[in-house]
Amino acid sequence: MMNEILENALIAGLAGRFPRSPLQYNGLQESDAELIRLPGTDVLLAVTADTIVEEIEAGLYADPYLIGWMTVIASASDLAAVGAEPLGILLSETLPRDAGGEFTASLQSGIRDACLACGLHVLGGDTNLSSRLVMTGCALGVVSDGRPITRVGCRPGDLLFATGRFGGGSAYAFVRFVLARKGHNLSFPYQPQPRLREGQLVRRFASCAMDTSDGLLTTLDQLMRLNSVGFVVEAGPEEFLDPYTLRLSGQAKVAPWIPLAGPHGEFELVFAVPPPQVDPLLARASADGWTPVMLGKVVAEPGISLLLAGEATRLDTGRIRNLFDHCDGNVDEYFSGLLSLQMELEEGGRTDAS
Amino acid sequence: MMNEILENALIAGLAGRFPRSPLQYNGLQESDAELIRLPGTDVLLAVTADTIVEEIEAGLYADPYLIGWMTVIASASDLAAVGAEPLGILLSETLPRDAGGEFTASLQSGIRDACLACGLHVLGGDTNLSSRLVMTGCALGVVSDGRPITRVGCRPGDLLFATGRFGGGSAYAFVRFVLARKGHNLSFPYQPQPRLREGQLVRRFASCAMDTSDGLLTTLDQLMRLNSVGFVVEAGPEEFLDPYTLRLSGQAKVAPWIPLAGPHGEFELVFAVPPPQVDPLLARASADGWTPVMLGKVVAEPGISLLLAGEATRLDTGRIRNLFDHCDGNVDEYFSGLLSLQMELEEGGRTDAS
Repeated sequence: MMNEILENALIAGLAGRFPRSPLQYNGLQESDAELIRLPGTDVLLAVTADTIVEEIEAGLYADPYLIGWMTVIASASDLAAVGAEPLGILLSETLPRDAGGEFTASLQSGIRDACLACGLHVLGGDTNLSSRLVMTGCALGVVSDGRPITRVGCRPGDLLFATGRFGGGSAYAFVRFVLARKGHNLSFPYQPQPRLREGQLVRRFASCAMDTSDGLLTTLDQLMRLNSVGFVVEAGPEEFLDPYTLRLSGQAKVAPWIPLAGPHGEFELVFAVPPPQVDPLLARASADGWTPVMLGKVVAEPGISLLLAGEATRLDTGRIRNLFDHCDGNVDEYFSGLLSLQMELEEGGRTDAS
Repeated sequence: MMNEILENALIAGLAGRFPRSPLQYNGLQESDAELIRLPGTDVLLAVTADTIVEEIEAGLYADPYLIGWMTVIASASDLAAVGAEPLGILLSETLPRDAGGEFTASLQSGIRDACLACGLHVLGGDTNLSSRLVMTGCALGVVSDGRPITRVGCRPGDLLFATGRFGGGSAYAFVRFVLARKGHNLSFPYQPQPRLREGQLVRRFASCAMDTSDGLLTTLDQLMRLNSVGFVVEAGPEEFLDPYTLRLSGQAKVAPWIPLAGPHGEFELVFAVPPPQVDPLLARASADGWTPVMLGKVVAEPGISLLLAGEATRLDTGRIRNLFDHCDGNVDEYFSGLLSLQMELEEGGRTDAS
């Protein structure tokens, strides 16, 4: 079931040939960050490597400050999803030979500000000169008591929550790729915030967690495959979409599930909570100054359903996830593909009703 | 003095803006791998990130097996230089969209074989598709007793050793860039071996260590600047050059110091040993089946001198290190620059003698 998804199959094909470490706590794909037992201690090390290159090549990220910021946030988000305390980050910066001082200064400012926001120190790294900009962050954290949260562990009956609302990652791509090319120069704020503190709290109460680096539907689909469960999102679009995206999707007449499709996400955490843990979690979150977004519930039957136009609507998230790869990363083709899917859904709805 | 070297100045400019972590054992530039104290334990974590991109873009590495191998070795070598026990490695692979299955399989074979040779497990990583191949390795190790070896600590009177002979990195570049273009299709074996076991032994006896990822002269120059000492290499070319490089430099009539100039090295370890530790080190190394190469000694006066044509010859290693950057990475210009330096040295020698 996992390998129906092209990205999962690619990862299994690349990583499946390597033996796993006996010190590794998590299986392949089972955790946002890799979790390593440190011999002779109770400490679990959380470590992750993320490269920002596709977003730069596609023109999604052009502002060097945003690129610096995202290099840190993409890695830090994986630490957040396992509930690790941040230790630090290594940066491997491959800089264009013709990058000017202003560009580099802005890149470093984005890194510095994101590190401050995350509580991550820059520990070191590597610098190379090349024809193109490629940025890799490798974040390190610890789970002192050795009890992390992973993608695996939720059960039917658990409630589904998130650290924030969704759609910003897709909406930002829509603004830059579709609207900007049509001459609409909308300013759309995209600067995902670290969720490390939330993750450390979530770890104590939740049964599984994963970030939405690739959008909500990818996250739910992956959690569904890993846990052999389904998810029913009972919140409506005005609750699961962030206000900017909700307004934009209304103006552009795009169905509210489309901004959840990814593959560019908003780096919130999605997590399931067993019913007895819900009230303690909400109380502690409130004391910390934030409110988890209630999304819905975990059910026994695999599948993802969303509340769209007031009706529970089942989405073929496997097909949606593979669409971007099937389009070989061509953004226009991808948007057309999503709109075709939307038309099928609407026709399906009419057929059911007739 | 450190920032006379363009690469050091670049690193200081990039990293100097970030505050250091209170958990970090080593200062900026003071260690091949970053050394992090793990709160609540005696363990020191060693971690490093290295990206292979310049060698690929320049055409120095074209064989995917070698690229996979070097992605692991470049990181592992930094662990070796601090004497860490290897834990594992994360790989961030940015693969060309048009990479075929054979290319990818060969890349993965190089990674797998190098990991086996190093005792490193692949822990995870990231995969991206792009127009170009960029490979990042992020290796993790531990120094269980919290006492690593760094680049800093040698004193005048210490003896200078290495885990092997030098020149292979430069000779390989010479074969690929100069000879191959002239139609000489020489096969030159370049596949640096891991020095992790040697590094763990060296750690117990040496006063400082650094790998020769950028060639011997860069390593000695950096150790000179960090320790405010000088190095006198008393071994002759037939002792400090590996047999292939020695033969090749004779055939090509290239002075024996030129293959030490880098910037592409052979990933041996160079280390200094206080006199009372020399015999114990040699005995233990012999029991482990290897023999350190005796290079020379540490002296009080800064400077690097080599035994060339039977005479102690002082080299301006700062100028040599900056030459590649001054040529903006142009390989032909770089080789010409080295040959000009050689002519100056020879004329200087004649002038001194007259």
